[in-house]
Amino acid sequence: MSAQTAAEILNELERIPLIDPHSHINPHTPASVTLADILGYHYYTELAHSTGLPKERIEEPGLDPKEKVGRLVEYLGPLENTAQVSWLIEMCQEFFDFQDDRITPANWEALYDTAATRMARPDWEDQVLQHSGLEQVFLTNEFDDSLEGFDTSRYVPCLRTDDLVFHLTKPEIRSRLSQATGSEPGSAASLKAALGKLFDHFTSRGARACAISLPPDFSPASVSQAAADSVIEAAFRGDSLDAAQQGTLSCFVFWTLAELCAEHRLPFDLMIGVNRKVYEDGVFQGQDLFDHRTSLIQYRQLFNAFPQVTFPVSVLGQTSNQELVSYSWIFPNVVTSGHWWYSNIPAFIELDCRSRLQAVPATKQIGYYSDMYKLEFGLPKFAMYRRILAGILARDFVVSRNWPVERAVALGRQVLRTNVEQIFNCG
Amino acid sequence: MSAQTAAEILNELERIPLIDPHSHINPHTPASVTLADILGYHYYTELAHSTGLPKERIEEPGLDPKEKVGRLVEYLGPLENTAQVSWLIEMCQEFFDFQDDRITPANWEALYDTAATRMARPDWEDQVLQHSGLEQVFLTNEFDDSLEGFDTSRYVPCLRTDDLVFHLTKPEIRSRLSQATGSEPGSAASLKAALGKLFDHFTSRGARACAISLPPDFSPASVSQAAADSVIEAAFRGDSLDAAQQGTLSCFVFWTLAELCAEHRLPFDLMIGVNRKVYEDGVFQGQDLFDHRTSLIQYRQLFNAFPQVTFPVSVLGQTSNQELVSYSWIFPNVVTSGHWWYSNIPAFIELDCRSRLQAVPATKQIGYYSDMYKLEFGLPKFAMYRRILAGILARDFVVSRNWPVERAVALGRQVLRTNVEQIFNCG
Amino acid sequence: MSAQTAAEILNELERIPLIDPHSHINPHTPASVTLADILGYHYYTELAHSTGLPKERIEEPGLDPKEKVGRLVEYLGPLENTAQVSWLIEMCQEFFDFQDDRITPANWEALYDTAATRMARPDWEDQVLQHSGLEQVFLTNEFDDSLEGFDTSRYVPCLRTDDLVFHLTKPEIRSRLSQATGSEPGSAASLKAALGKLFDHFTSRGARACAISLPPDFSPASVSQAAADSVIEAAFRGDSLDAAQQGTLSCFVFWTLAELCAEHRLPFDLMIGVNRKVYEDGVFQGQDLFDHRTSLIQYRQLFNAFPQVTFPVSVLGQTSNQELVSYSWIFPNVVTSGHWWYSNIPAFIELDCRSRLQAVPATKQIGYYSDMYKLEFGLPKFAMYRRILAGILARDFVVSRNWPVERAVALGRQVLRTNVEQIFNCG
Repeated sequence: MSAQTAAEILNELERIPLIDPHSHINPHTPASVTLADILGYHYYTELAHSTGLPKERIEEPGLDPKEKVGRLVEYLGPLENTAQVSWLIEMCQEFFDFQDDRITPANWEALYDTAATRMARPDWEDQVLQHSGLEQVFLTNEFDDSLEGFDTSRYVPCLRTDDLVFHLTKPEIRSRLSQATGSEPGSAASLKAALGKLFDHFTSRGARACAISLPPDFSPASVSQAAADSVIEAAFRGDSLDAAQQGTLSCFVFWTLAELCAEHRLPFDLMIGVNRKVYEDGVFQGQDLFDHRTSLIQYRQLFNAFPQVTFPVSVLGQTSNQELVSYSWIFPNVVTSGHWWYSNIPAFIELDCRSRLQAVPATKQIGYYSDMYKLEFGLPKFAMYRRILAGILARDFVVSRNWPVERAVALGRQVLRTNVEQIFNCG
Repeated sequence: MSAQTAAEILNELERIPLIDPHSHINPHTPASVTLADILGYHYYTELAHSTGLPKERIEEPGLDPKEKVGRLVEYLGPLENTAQVSWLIEMCQEFFDFQDDRITPANWEALYDTAATRMARPDWEDQVLQHSGLEQVFLTNEFDDSLEGFDTSRYVPCLRTDDLVFHLTKPEIRSRLSQATGSEPGSAASLKAALGKLFDHFTSRGARACAISLPPDFSPASVSQAAADSVIEAAFRGDSLDAAQQGTLSCFVFWTLAELCAEHRLPFDLMIGVNRKVYEDGVFQGQDLFDHRTSLIQYRQLFNAFPQVTFPVSVLGQTSNQELVSYSWIFPNVVTSGHWWYSNIPAFIELDCRSRLQAVPATKQIGYYSDMYKLEFGLPKFAMYRRILAGILARDFVVSRNWPVERAVALGRQVLRTNVEQIFNCG
Repeated sequence: MSAQTAAEILNELERIPLIDPHSHINPHTPASVTLADILGYHYYTELAHSTGLPKERIEEPGLDPKEKVGRLVEYLGPLENTAQVSWLIEMCQEFFDFQDDRITPANWEALYDTAATRMARPDWEDQVLQHSGLEQVFLTNEFDDSLEGFDTSRYVPCLRTDDLVFHLTKPEIRSRLSQATGSEPGSAASLKAALGKLFDHFTSRGARACAISLPPDFSPASVSQAAADSVIEAAFRGDSLDAAQQGTLSCFVFWTLAELCAEHRLPFDLMIGVNRKVYEDGVFQGQDLFDHRTSLIQYRQLFNAFPQVTFPVSVLGQTSNQELVSYSWIFPNVVTSGHWWYSNIPAFIELDCRSRLQAVPATKQIGYYSDMYKLEFGLPKFAMYRRILAGILARDFVVSRNWPVERAVALGRQVLRTNVEQIFNCG
């Protein structure tokens, strides 16, 4: 009975048009051009490398896209069990009429050619969006992105701030900041003014969020003006900073971003828990991992200091989910956000989604985002989430709590769509 | 088949009269007087606040109870998905013949009035206990509670010791201790004597446990007499202590409590993992959170030093459950206790209860306690637990291990009732 | 439907002959002689002790095996719910025609006698292996084991190295090392040479792995030759080392073992997370516990430094599983290994196995090992795992992803058998 109810709920959820509140889409080339854009996604390259494909075979300069796909396909066999490959198969079946249930050295070429033909259609981007039920897609824009040349009502700008918080000591970052803002900061006040110009630019172009990914050991804290002045002056002079100074600089910039989010009424997406470049010889974007020993208690001062800023929080570790549930239940300004990266597989989504639906106010949950680099991934990723969501709504609400199906569907709609509109003021 | 078996088991479990081994009931006003006593429970005020209800609206001095309920009801909509609100609805259906499945601005007044009428009945307290199947309810008594004026065979005293361990530097706590014990401690020996008087008083009034909640970073350790004397003298002189001294004082008092538990043969309930006042502007009792980075290894010295004391352990973080299972499997004096606070929702109870039933001796599990402030909460909370328990007994024991239903029911009885009697020597 | 599919898959999995890639079997007395060998397993003695059996009752010198079993049986009642006792019952039913579903003071003697008779058969060992479907069993050999007198194609030697890494300061360990290698190391170079001799000996006798268990706070790091020389000289002179020196020594030996694994092409089994002797008065082998606050990030330098060494990683804490999944997904040289000790119960295996099957390449998962001390345990332990595996394959692959049953069975075969052959180059 629960399976039939789940199917009924799923059917309704599938009609809801989506807003994807976090992606890495390039709005100038949002859809794929060949299957290499799809199989080149780090989820596939890193898994293929992890089973034995030498990095050089796929990162060879000038490698032909078709050749690259062929090399990756040789390593797909051992990956077929993964959720990641299930997205690939579903995508190929939905978009390219792929009839098989595995991609092999024997059948990939025809698939490659069909995909290339489809992708070459002038309205391919529109077709993908429509077939996926996607109305809007949030971006991840570098701080000096001009945000010109694309439709910001379809592709919603978001200000990504990792470089500002963690890499201001790199000359190229400082130089890009100077160029983007027409200023040469050298003090707390002038740096804040420069950052403010970025917010002005982004919000004038319809930005709906400020976003950042953070390492497990980061603890935001407010910094005195004097301490900030001293490290900013040193950093912009080009001095190298020691770890404590770097920490002060990061805290100052981060805290200033939160202040600017308050001033500009932007939610601040926190993606907590990633250690960068852990596997040094990994493929492109396939080097990052995490340390589950991080806690939201590290954000205590921040959450208290900025009651007027909404913080959609993503956690990389599944073992951080209960803290996220509890902090969202208590702090008015903390909301749960999606199922990020290493937590984005059914076994973990199921646990995390259940506990959120059982303990976090319905209005404070951003159900899912795709995190995609190419539009074609939206369909299978949201489909995976929707199936899990429908199953939980059926079991935990219709069966266990005797809710009518429509009420369960309404809850599904809220976390899938309505909350995105209301939290980010979009849609 | 599993669903039918679960129903059969549930039916049997529902006949078992309960002893609630941990609550915050005030034995002088155990039941509610109006619905405001129920909706004023921090689970509702903090969730309503978390979705936007300003704290002042419900903490306004002199606020009329009915007006308070009306204000809270406006914010119930977004909370309907939560397990907490499911308790509320079930409670209203069971106790006040509430026919709807949601409490809304349109129907709450009639409910309020019906509840007020029922609650005004002279035997309301008895009715609640009887309808809930509750025979005894453990209390959480301040150390200077006179324990007079109530039936201690129905409401079982327990000595709560947070203030003694963590707040002896506050003048009012020291003064209350002096008054309660007729002594002015100033040394390790005299403080232990004073604490001993509290134990004498509590046990003479039928106390069945000593209890405490502990922050994630607490590590009990034995303290030398000299070190203890020095900090106790300073504290009782009114000196302010530095963090190390405060730590020494807390360790000494805690260790002394364990010694007194041994002498008085009282179990020592440890509720591990809460950080107090994390959300500074939260509503009353809605400010506490946690850091999942705590470990039972911090209690290694304690568990080894007091083999004669039973430690019923509650953990706040679901990610601490496996340690609790393993420590209870190894240490004869450690037993699992309930599903506490942020872990008290079906998704987490299910995981935790399954692993305990699969790996901890049946005699070493205290299945559940209500943690309630008002008697009416016992019914829906125990009902939630019993349903989950029945489901696990059906799947993991009857279906997977071919146990007859009666044997599964007997296991359920043991964790639900028998162990409470045996561990706390009550019933 | 899922239950029927699971049964179909299970039926196929049960035909697959097993290689057990980790056990503590003594190849000179692999099978049990009496039921005391089985009930003397620490899983039973520690649980019985945990429910009240005094240690002295079962560790009494010269205790008759039958008497010992009788004493343990008195305490089995409260343990019947545990997975551990379910192994015992299944084992007795399968091997000794035991007809009851509980072992009690009333029926144990007949069981004891039947077991003794069966175990006395000259081909008992063969019968157990055959009935269990076990073809090969990996051992855990002390570094100075002669590896003589048994069939190394049936019982596969593995070099266990805990003593070398953590206990070289003990005179008896150094003396055993000297005897085993005919050398008196006193420097980094000579110690490495001595360790190399152990590897030569082990690989000449068909060893297939180097293995070690590690405490939660261990972080392997490479050590300079000078630093190593200094602590090795001190240690072999018999000086006592401080904590930092001991750490340097442990790191040097560990790192050298990894180098030798590379040279000898041996996988290095890492069993991460155990704290030894936490419960000081526990029964034999029933004293160890853990601290869930450990992270694979501590192995970052190691995994990067030895791309040519395969590291099958076991984690003691269930909350470490997601890191293990993610590190195996990224690092080519990290593979998941079994369900260890406190994580070896169905509730945890289910969670861990699901996530591995959904996110780790199929070729990089060692499904299960028995960890057994006596051959009879292989049957019920592998049976438990296979049932869980079949259930997951049915639900997550056949039902959710529409895989044909044969394809799900093939995935099961891979993690159950094929990967063991390929990763350890055996079978």
